[in-house]
Amino acid sequence: MAPPLVTLLTDFGLADTYVAQVKGVLLSLVPAATVVDATHAIEPGDILGGCLALESILPHFPQGTVHLAVVDPGVGTARLPLAVAAEGQLAVGPDNGLLTPLLALPGARAHAIRAGRFARAIVAPTFHGRDLFAPAAAHLLAGGSLDDLGPPVAAPVVVALPAAQLLAGGVDGEVVQVDRFGNCTTSIPAAALASPDPAAVRVTVAGREVRGLARTYGEVADGALVALIGATGRLEIAARNGAAGAVLGINRGTPVAVRW
Amino acid sequence: MAPPLVTLLTDFGLADTYVAQVKGVLLSLVPAATVVDATHAIEPGDILGGCLALESILPHFPQGTVHLAVVDPGVGTARLPLAVAAEGQLAVGPDNGLLTPLLALPGARAHAIRAGRFARAIVAPTFHGRDLFAPAAAHLLAGGSLDDLGPPVAAPVVVALPAAQLLAGGVDGEVVQVDRFGNCTTSIPAAALASPDPAAVRVTVAGREVRGLARTYGEVADGALVALIGATGRLEIAARNGAAGAVLGINRGTPVAVRW
Amino acid sequence: MAPPLVTLLTDFGLADTYVAQVKGVLLSLVPAATVVDATHAIEPGDILGGCLALESILPHFPQGTVHLAVVDPGVGTARLPLAVAAEGQLAVGPDNGLLTPLLALPGARAHAIRAGRFARAIVAPTFHGRDLFAPAAAHLLAGGSLDDLGPPVAAPVVVALPAAQLLAGGVDGEVVQVDRFGNCTTSIPAAALASPDPAAVRVTVAGREVRGLARTYGEVADGALVALIGATGRLEIAARNGAAGAVLGINRGTPVAVRW
Repeated sequence: MAPPLVTLLTDFGLADTYVAQVKGVLLSLVPAATVVDATHAIEPGDILGGCLALESILPHFPQGTVHLAVVDPGVGTARLPLAVAAEGQLAVGPDNGLLTPLLALPGARAHAIRAGRFARAIVAPTFHGRDLFAPAAAHLLAGGSLDDLGPPVAAPVVVALPAAQLLAGGVDGEVVQVDRFGNCTTSIPAAALASPDPAAVRVTVAGREVRGLARTYGEVADGALVALIGATGRLEIAARNGAAGAVLGINRGTPVAVRW
Repeated sequence: MAPPLVTLLTDFGLADTYVAQVKGVLLSLVPAATVVDATHAIEPGDILGGCLALESILPHFPQGTVHLAVVDPGVGTARLPLAVAAEGQLAVGPDNGLLTPLLALPGARAHAIRAGRFARAIVAPTFHGRDLFAPAAAHLLAGGSLDDLGPPVAAPVVVALPAAQLLAGGVDGEVVQVDRFGNCTTSIPAAALASPDPAAVRVTVAGREVRGLARTYGEVADGALVALIGATGRLEIAARNGAAGAVLGINRGTPVAVRW
Repeated sequence: MAPPLVTLLTDFGLADTYVAQVKGVLLSLVPAATVVDATHAIEPGDILGGCLALESILPHFPQGTVHLAVVDPGVGTARLPLAVAAEGQLAVGPDNGLLTPLLALPGARAHAIRAGRFARAIVAPTFHGRDLFAPAAAHLLAGGSLDDLGPPVAAPVVVALPAAQLLAGGVDGEVVQVDRFGNCTTSIPAAALASPDPAAVRVTVAGREVRGLARTYGEVADGALVALIGATGRLEIAARNGAAGAVLGINRGTPVAVRW
């Protein structure tokens, strides 16, 4: 049987031992679990950044994976602790919109997590990740049900994820991520660019125009800008062997206009 | 049966492959082990920082966990290699004070690690973490005894961990950690603050006074300072959605005075 | 039976979720795998840096380990995807020289990876690590053969690794790595320094001369430069409790001259 699989996605960083404390609790409760770090580099309190990171990993994990996600500026306040199931995957985290990528899937079910038998004996009001979410995730990893954790939540908090506006002869969107390579992923899905001739596409971002859609980085000269469908299935703007984001001053939220 | 569980706590950083080399040795010897990174971001040679990190994870790992800790400026010199057992957990590392959090527990036992059959065939004088401590940790992970590793050590090196001084109507301590969020954990335990009315408590640090003890960050205005009992069971000074440490110029060792 | 063991060595960094996406694919296909991060801090596109990191971990991993290495500026172009076996270890990655440390071993065999049943249904031209190399690594982890992946490659790309030139009364080499501690590993193997009296050795680097070979850092005064045989079996220049690399302005490629 496959070992239970849990991912961790937080804004804790890797310098402090908070991530290790969470893993200690998880492995105390489910010793056979396989734990994967999704990322711990979300900017402190950046719920949208956490959403986009969670969205990026969902397609690549198997059925039954539990995603423990903690970007939680309201920790210990009235915001609910939440567990969500959708399309065979599960997530545990604060009810502040962080779990939107799972909540947005068809048939998603959300339950509150009652403290009590699924929490540690003492729950630190400032560290629900360790004392409340980790035990709840362990319950799900061990095959426990959402119903055991607490009552259904009818209207969990969702955040507006960056989208694309289809126009006649074009589409508008925005940059959603600038990665380590300086490659800029946008909110524009490949489907929105399926009809025009790739050579006829013009992408404008940060005052620069990129002509044509390429297939991969190596099709343009060193340092030149290139637009292509990236590995997330969305329009991406990059510079071959260069950092497009830094060169152009692009950040998350920078508008992107495509015309043909 | 639960897989053997080992944590790694070092000042190696994550850019070089030293941590991976240690893991390779561990998994060569105990293929079924689960390896958890405690942290590898201890400042080079910062033994006290390593102690505080080790102390922070101990309560969250199960019986039988082996902690492999290497902050070892004296590697290869006369300082002993050490293995320690206390309250069902084990640790391996240099005899330079790093293992103090375990050595300070009741009934702690310390043994020297003789090279020989528990070391690799060639021990690099500059990398005991890989060639001596990892094989010793593997021995313990496989259920081997401290006695096999070497003779008892009567007086292992311990360092003075930051403490708190109880006063009439107050307690003095110091900051022991400024974390990624800029939250400042102090050396003052919750027990020292159990008697006064939380509203009557005054915390002074870096020339600023914080009035009252809160339960969690969200009880004060955005950016305001807040004092509370943190997730380690100690007094913590934080700024809601801000970095108290950076704002106030607080570092490890900054004095903290509490009065009521 | 030992769980299948795979290492990941990339230039992806740890802030984005690319590493987690690769792990999700690997664990979807081989749920029992143990995954070890070799490093993800290779500078973007630095093939030689990736080579040196791969070389540093090979001696410490057991037979049957699969190394998934991705530093791949030409991703999606005509460069072949490659799988290599040598001395009982395996590697998967681009045919751009990155796998040189394994290809240089006696009896190394290299095969191209045909897309098809060993790739994901859709292969993103910009993310072969996830969609092509991870499934190929999973095939090898599950005990599959190189022959299944694709045809042999007679002349895979290799890069020139930094070497040492033996002279009468000396040896010339270069710095191959400056680590987190500022310690500088060179391309000069211990064997090249076996004949002279250690006290008679003179090491010149960045305009400074270090006299004699020490055994470990603690043999010189605090801050003083020291030359010794490092943990990779090569000449290393370090400063006791200091960062030799930063102090002396040493980088990868800085020449090192040894005379006796």
